[in-house]
Amino acid sequence: MFSIRRALTPRVAARAHCDVPCGIYDPIAATIAAQTVAKMVEKINDLKGNMDTAGANTFTRCVTVKEEHAEKVKREVTILWGDYFKPEHLAKHPDLHTLVWQTLKLASKNKQNVDAAAAAELQANVKRISDIFWETKKG
Amino acid sequence: MFSIRRALTPRVAARAHCDVPCGIYDPIAATIAAQTVAKMVEKINDLKGNMDTAGANTFTRCVTVKEEHAEKVKREVTILWGDYFKPEHLAKHPDLHTLVWQTLKLASKNKQNVDAAAAAELQANVKRISDIFWETKKG
Amino acid sequence: MFSIRRALTPRVAARAHCDVPCGIYDPIAATIAAQTVAKMVEKINDLKGNMDTAGANTFTRCVTVKEEHAEKVKREVTILWGDYFKPEHLAKHPDLHTLVWQTLKLASKNKQNVDAAAAAELQANVKRISDIFWETKKG
Amino acid sequence: MFSIRRALTPRVAARAHCDVPCGIYDPIAATIAAQTVAKMVEKINDLKGNMDTAGANTFTRCVTVKEEHAEKVKREVTILWGDYFKPEHLAKHPDLHTLVWQTLKLASKNKQNVDAAAAAELQANVKRISDIFWETKKG
Amino acid sequence: MFSIRRALTPRVAARAHCDVPCGIYDPIAATIAAQTVAKMVEKINDLKGNMDTAGANTFTRCVTVKEEHAEKVKREVTILWGDYFKPEHLAKHPDLHTLVWQTLKLASKNKQNVDAAAAAELQANVKRISDIFWETKKG
Amino acid sequence: MFSIRRALTPRVAARAHCDVPCGIYDPIAATIAAQTVAKMVEKINDLKGNMDTAGANTFTRCVTVKEEHAEKVKREVTILWGDYFKPEHLAKHPDLHTLVWQTLKLASKNKQNVDAAAAAELQANVKRISDIFWETKKG
Repeated sequence: MFSIRRALTPRVAARAHCDVPCGIYDPIAATIAAQTVAKMVEKINDLKGNMDTAGANTFTRCVTVKEEHAEKVKREVTILWGDYFKPEHLAKHPDLHTLVWQTLKLASKNKQNVDAAAAAELQANVKRISDIFWETKKG
Repeated sequence: MFSIRRALTPRVAARAHCDVPCGIYDPIAATIAAQTVAKMVEKINDLKGNMDTAGANTFTRCVTVKEEHAEKVKREVTILWGDYFKPEHLAKHPDLHTLVWQTLKLASKNKQNVDAAAAAELQANVKRISDIFWETKKG
Repeated sequence: MFSIRRALTPRVAARAHCDVPCGIYDPIAATIAAQTVAKMVEKINDLKGNMDTAGANTFTRCVTVKEEHAEKVKREVTILWGDYFKPEHLAKHPDLHTLVWQTLKLASKNKQNVDAAAAAELQANVKRISDIFWETKKG
Repeated sequence: MFSIRRALTPRVAARAHCDVPCGIYDPIAATIAAQTVAKMVEKINDLKGNMDTAGANTFTRCVTVKEEHAEKVKREVTILWGDYFKPEHLAKHPDLHTLVWQTLKLASKNKQNVDAAAAAELQANVKRISDIFWETKKG
Repeated sequence: MFSIRRALTPRVAARAHCDVPCGIYDPIAATIAAQTVAKMVEKINDLKGNMDTAGANTFTRCVTVKEEHAEKVKREVTILWGDYFKPEHLAKHPDLHTLVWQTLKLASKNKQNVDAAAAAELQANVKRISDIFWETKKG
Repeated sequence: MFSIRRALTPRVAARAHCDVPCGIYDPIAATIAAQTVAKMVEKINDLKGNMDTAGANTFTRCVTVKEEHAEKVKREVTILWGDYFKPEHLAKHPDLHTLVWQTLKLASKNKQNVDAAAAAELQANVKRISDIFWETKKG
């Protein structure tokens, strides 16, 4: 039976660990949301266009979850950018503004399309933001 | 013309009556939500797979309403379970934990499927919880 | 211990009964919301201005619940007015438009004040709308 | 590429101008929401029934946006009616109650259908409410 | 009587006009939200620390509205930045990234404080973003 | 300057690690929410009853965040209980129903009070649920 929650299962472990006490600013929420977008694209493609009642029920739910989690990527990434990152972080990572900006645009692209490559790109961008985040925690 | 609100009309009267002043804890919200899930399944089946523009508009809206009201069943039942029911109620109704737990799982099943039998089961479970609730009010 | 949910307990039974199967359009939600507003005013007044930590915690929560339920009165009454009532109902109850309009304004007054008389007025107005609703069901 | 936000672009300028300082009560939100409903109907009709994966993704999103913005029309119009308009405005515009009431019903009609004529009617009604609003500002 | 909605009234006209048909991307929502934050600060200061029941009711509501509208500034500004602005706009306005970033931080500052100067700064920043927006529309 | 987000910083690392790929069911959200409740209690107590404008601004915001995160604990714990845990898990952890039930009641207690001991108890209960969760993942 199809389960949206089960569909959310990321393939690789989503870690929120940190060796110093980690704050509430944590890229894990954005990471899981991006994985969810990718999983929804996969689920939709698995339907192979089947739009009978059961298929269309799943399709409608997957599009809605894809929309919500692409939006969640935007929100979580913006929280990290606007609330967590400070001028000293920008000094070390001068491309952060552009990286965040392009990630928001990728999230929109994933709303508007069912496109596994765009979903993978979104995950890669979120990973880069996450890596920068943890880099600043090492300092 | 299709009307979601009209579609919500339960077939039997949803009563929130109580002979002693009833509190805000009232299983009527869960009851109506479960009826709504059943009604949406009926509406979706009435479409007989018609996915022209008008049909698909109705389909999409019914799936969304089904999702929301299955979620509402979960929330309302959890409020009764976690906030209203006290240890003395559990003593008299030792299967309450299991009943609530299975009802949450039935609500998920109704999200994931368009299945009139599962919807009827959900209504039956909510009725059992409702009966226990009113039983405790008699005390 | 203070409990907002317990505070919601209306003094008189909130009935959603109907002798013909009642639809989802049901004034009970507006009725309970108006009772909740009144109960919050009572709870706030019970604090007698005590703003120590425990008092202010209760105060803040009661103001928030008052706000939300006054808003809920507005929303529920508007649903009945806009979605349920039809031209034939208006023909029999020509003051309905004005009654609904004044009820919305009373809900605002209850947000802006802690005023037991205004809360009682709000409950009375909702009761009049509820009576008209059930009157149309008898037809 | 399809973009819901771009789809929201109204064809005529949505103006919130006022020659006296305008208050927060502003019919522009209702105006844009009604335009959005119309745009969604257009987008849905542009699909010409194409329900392949890309088409159905767009269809599902447009129906959801249509639903949300028809609901937003209701909410914004009700705020103007219940919160802004005062007895002296009613005296000058005695048909306001009926106009608002019919606008709510038109919004429901647009949820339940994909109908360009109903969307145009909704826009026309919102424009009439907007005109009355600005009329009262001239004082 | 205190009215939050009336409190929202900006002192200068909030204009969403545009000489070419304006799109849904419109800085007016951010502008009004920033004005609301400023108005709430003013309302809170008008209380002069009065925390009797009526005063504390107003205080609690104003802090909540301040919080919500500071959050709304963040959301609306992020929508413009992430969804509307394109690389060609950035080329002409290379400080846009930094301007948006600092505006988000100012919104947080306004949540955490009751500070008229910080509210004025927030309004000034939103005005700069708005000016850039309309500049790109002239092109 | 007071920062709610900074206030959310848990003292010990919140780990979502798992040695097998972890699913979306992850007790980390409940863990962080419980920590946030505890942090809000601490922040409120730090005010030592100071209810001048700055103090009351912080107080109001902390009570609201405490309320929301106590509610989030309820929701996240219920998701784990209703959606993730299966009959075979119950067989091994027969006290799970009672543990979840008591955790919901503890969350309510934390809403209704500003009580560091109750907050610590809530964190301990969530940790027990989290431990059971990870135990089932080892299987």
